[in-house]
Amino acid sequence: MSNPTLDLTIQLMKQPSVTPNDADCQQIIARRLEQLGFQIEHLRFEDVDNLWARRGSQGPVLVFAGHTDVVPTGPIERWHSDPFAPVVRDDHLYGRGAADMKASLAAFVTATEDFLATHPEPRGSIAFLLTSDEEGPARHGTVKVIDTLRARGEALDYCIVGEPTSAEAFGDTIKNGRRGSLSGHLTVHGVQGHIAYPHLAKNPIHLLAPALDELARTEWDKGNVHFPPTTWQVSNIHGGTGATNVIPGTVELQFNFRFSTENTAESLQRKVHAVLDAHGLEHEIEWTLSGEPFLTDHGELIDAIRGAVARVTGSVPVLNTTGGTSDGRFIAKHCPQVVEFGPLNRTIHKLNECVAVADLPKLSAIYRKTMEALLT
Amino acid sequence: MSNPTLDLTIQLMKQPSVTPNDADCQQIIARRLEQLGFQIEHLRFEDVDNLWARRGSQGPVLVFAGHTDVVPTGPIERWHSDPFAPVVRDDHLYGRGAADMKASLAAFVTATEDFLATHPEPRGSIAFLLTSDEEGPARHGTVKVIDTLRARGEALDYCIVGEPTSAEAFGDTIKNGRRGSLSGHLTVHGVQGHIAYPHLAKNPIHLLAPALDELARTEWDKGNVHFPPTTWQVSNIHGGTGATNVIPGTVELQFNFRFSTENTAESLQRKVHAVLDAHGLEHEIEWTLSGEPFLTDHGELIDAIRGAVARVTGSVPVLNTTGGTSDGRFIAKHCPQVVEFGPLNRTIHKLNECVAVADLPKLSAIYRKTMEALLT
Repeated sequence: MSNPTLDLTIQLMKQPSVTPNDADCQQIIARRLEQLGFQIEHLRFEDVDNLWARRGSQGPVLVFAGHTDVVPTGPIERWHSDPFAPVVRDDHLYGRGAADMKASLAAFVTATEDFLATHPEPRGSIAFLLTSDEEGPARHGTVKVIDTLRARGEALDYCIVGEPTSAEAFGDTIKNGRRGSLSGHLTVHGVQGHIAYPHLAKNPIHLLAPALDELARTEWDKGNVHFPPTTWQVSNIHGGTGATNVIPGTVELQFNFRFSTENTAESLQRKVHAVLDAHGLEHEIEWTLSGEPFLTDHGELIDAIRGAVARVTGSVPVLNTTGGTSDGRFIAKHCPQVVEFGPLNRTIHKLNECVAVADLPKLSAIYRKTMEALLT
Repeated sequence: MSNPTLDLTIQLMKQPSVTPNDADCQQIIARRLEQLGFQIEHLRFEDVDNLWARRGSQGPVLVFAGHTDVVPTGPIERWHSDPFAPVVRDDHLYGRGAADMKASLAAFVTATEDFLATHPEPRGSIAFLLTSDEEGPARHGTVKVIDTLRARGEALDYCIVGEPTSAEAFGDTIKNGRRGSLSGHLTVHGVQGHIAYPHLAKNPIHLLAPALDELARTEWDKGNVHFPPTTWQVSNIHGGTGATNVIPGTVELQFNFRFSTENTAESLQRKVHAVLDAHGLEHEIEWTLSGEPFLTDHGELIDAIRGAVARVTGSVPVLNTTGGTSDGRFIAKHCPQVVEFGPLNRTIHKLNECVAVADLPKLSAIYRKTMEALLT
């Protein structure tokens, strides 16, 4: 049985596009889109390839967004087959990028081809926003393309990010937002000294303990209907000279917030400093905001994709905002409605990554039905 | 003016006896003692030279104890002069080991020579217990000599350890004991996980915080008339995989007690485990007991040396038990009265270590007058 989504997924997986290398994946897709009448723009920033392709000049604008780069293979001898020589075994397609996210890219293309075959003159515009730097630092990818579009006043209305969102069964989950991520590198200062003379020193590890306990117990918010409560976790703590008879002069702590829309980066920063100040700690923090939280709580896009999933799979998917960060955080600053939907994420970033062959035409059908709902 | 203690100190300092190398210092001393009628025993354990020299077969036995090894020089280019080419400048003798403790060793010898010149047949015995492993791990030094003496039933009555105990002015301080030192290496176990999914992990750094705070605030005892209160200090803390998005599986802590005779190693171990258990921490601790506390609270030895110091310096010295550990902890297990007395300790273990030339004959006189008080 013909499976054009499988064929294109395989073609893309043969390109070893380990981040930030696009390995011509965007060229392969651009050629297909060009034949459909898309205007193609290759936007290269530093070592990152990005593609902006658009068909139509009117609104509403529906964007398919995704990344051609994949994470490294890990120890190649522990794969059952070459991660860049995709192979079907037991009804699954194996190889790096199968689920994250070359299947979604292929389904975007075949869905668009099928849609335009029956609706050659839809209302609005269809666009593709692809990057080769989602798995890496994500500094020269989607964020820069969005900056470019915003600078020239090119508006977006709906965006589907092809991230693998299905958790237990294909189609069970749509992400309609993501929590924010805020990291801090804390240094607490004391006074170094000999362990036999603690009255001449100030032990920063002892001083930190009650503040650390308070931060770990703090309820930052209760979350809301769309977001779980904000969490605060320490990832690393280091203090000490190595010698066992020396009280160290400093202790360092790295921590991370995953935060709901009930807080902002600024409100969390203020609260952390307030706790540390209340404990009298001489300290400084280097803050890194990886992403603000974003949310699409309702609208035509959610209605369209939820209906499409239900018709194809027979079940209504849940909406949630859990998990890590995605490029959705950059797009949401310029596009009022953003969702993420894609195949099962159980094997992503792991050895022997795979996607079910039977899910590929379903994925393409869901994207196509979403287009039909929004653009006809 | 002749200064035989200075001459012998210089001779010993020219020997670069960096721990555990004796560099023939014990031979130099043994030759002097042999001429005074001492029986000489060289007791080598592993890479450590030890000397046991005794004159007389009756009690009471007065022991001079000390070490010929010195700590490393540190960056030699930052010394004003070669640390192993002793030189007198501005009335001070400079070089590694000047104060810790070759001046004391030389003063032991010259004091004994002077004493025997006027009291050729004193009552009791005089002995020397020297090691080349006090500044190192201290496993094959004094502790082994004491084991040897105990095994053959050789009793000791009084011991003067030549550690540099003077703090602000020569002769101001006699140490009549030392606190105990007990170290622990604590591992607290949690469950590793992704920082975006803290409900699937157990952060051991968070779990440790309240227990750490409680331990840091605990009053272990109030000390007593001879000892300051027991202290507990963390020297090192390490947890984290290095990655900023991973909750680590364990956190490790190194800590140290300096403890008074109001506690024992066992009572402190029990209390620490009780706190950790009360906080529900899955944990283990590797304990290292570096030394039990010891104390000589009164007796003829203290009376003799205190009187000798007062007569030589014009001031009565204080007794205390502060500071680090010394080989006194090993000797105290076999000798009922142990004190430590020596020159100013301000420059020990530092660059440009020195001792005042004028203090050397005084130090020798104090040791001699102590002998006179105890053995005539």
